[in-house]
Amino acid sequence: MKYELYYWPEIQGRGEYVRLALEEAGADYVDVARGSRGSAAMMKMMEVHKGTPPFAPPFLKAGKLVIGQTANILLYLGARHGLAPKTEAGKLWVHQLQLTVTDLVVEIHDTHHPLGPSLYYEDQKLPAKKRTAEFWDERVPKYLGYFEQLFTENGGAYITGRRLTYVDLSLFQIVDGLRYAFPKRMKAFEKKIPGLVGLRDRVAARPNIKAYLASDRRIPFNEQGIFRQYRELDD
Amino acid sequence: MKYELYYWPEIQGRGEYVRLALEEAGADYVDVARGSRGSAAMMKMMEVHKGTPPFAPPFLKAGKLVIGQTANILLYLGARHGLAPKTEAGKLWVHQLQLTVTDLVVEIHDTHHPLGPSLYYEDQKLPAKKRTAEFWDERVPKYLGYFEQLFTENGGAYITGRRLTYVDLSLFQIVDGLRYAFPKRMKAFEKKIPGLVGLRDRVAARPNIKAYLASDRRIPFNEQGIFRQYRELDD
Repeated sequence: MKYELYYWPEIQGRGEYVRLALEEAGADYVDVARGSRGSAAMMKMMEVHKGTPPFAPPFLKAGKLVIGQTANILLYLGARHGLAPKTEAGKLWVHQLQLTVTDLVVEIHDTHHPLGPSLYYEDQKLPAKKRTAEFWDERVPKYLGYFEQLFTENGGAYITGRRLTYVDLSLFQIVDGLRYAFPKRMKAFEKKIPGLVGLRDRVAARPNIKAYLASDRRIPFNEQGIFRQYRELDD
Repeated sequence: MKYELYYWPEIQGRGEYVRLALEEAGADYVDVARGSRGSAAMMKMMEVHKGTPPFAPPFLKAGKLVIGQTANILLYLGARHGLAPKTEAGKLWVHQLQLTVTDLVVEIHDTHHPLGPSLYYEDQKLPAKKRTAEFWDERVPKYLGYFEQLFTENGGAYITGRRLTYVDLSLFQIVDGLRYAFPKRMKAFEKKIPGLVGLRDRVAARPNIKAYLASDRRIPFNEQGIFRQYRELDD
């Protein structure tokens, strides 16, 4: 079965967490909106009709299933491609961690869009500065401190222990994204999270991920995505 | 097995979505922090140690399992108490909808906390006004319009059709919460969502929910929770 991934073709965004899982798994998939059918094919799938229309991209077509919400897609893929434990307890734990990553992603987005997703960044620069300061003072230490401590306590190569799960792929993206968006702030912060930095390197070195990152399937970071490099927010 | 729910004892908050599911199911549970052990028992469970410490409340102790993240808890409870379909496709669909409710809940919270969760509302009143205006202009019509259309297309009594799922309980809470927080705005908006208003009434009339809402286990809405009534945001 060839998966169809539907996501905005110009950005990594939330679709990237799914792309990383599909790439690590070596799954057969097409990134639909990046092909000749473009975003129009994606918009068509989102029309509400009898069935299970997604609220927003990303969503994955897997045979007859259409699965929306990033963490939900990973829950599905994790079970099928060995990217999550097989036990119910393990599945729930990894999903719980992914939902915590999801919360963090919203807060990262809100650093540049504190007044809401429908206004331009240029119309909310001052609130963005305040929210970003708060984010780095309070939220980054809380989130990344949590993951760092989990990593240390588990004593493994990955966040839940010896084996890679889809959460590790997402944490790679978080570290890389924060490095892109906030190079100065992240450089200063990284000494507090040596475990996560090591995990990031371990993920980047995995053969399938390494090949993906070097390919043109990996869209470069840019200022339309979640992680945006605005110099005035990095001081 | 008696479940232990851990959540802040003074507010409905995110714990309410779990409380509603436990109550509808007639499950045997204790709301730990509201008892004599108080919030201290909850904080102790959150200490990072070998195991699966939650990042934040709510979390549910179910035998040896400790499950965090509201939607993850509902995924677990839904399968055990007939609050979700039995098929994989049905389970994923209901979970997807719950994750969309989760996104909406964050945006509701951010109407009064656009500059981040660690600052006081009093220190972000002006941005809160702007975010709230944006929320009602763009986001409420998008989210509730989506759920309304799903409801209409499915032609049932509940959001996925004939049978109640945990998402219906959450949608009840969304409608009731928006009524509390924004009485004027919501009154004007409700004529656009007759299906969801009917669904809300249908949930409220279910015997277990009716008994719960009339009991002191239901904490009243207040200005420490997600849904806050600030007159200046309701104009």
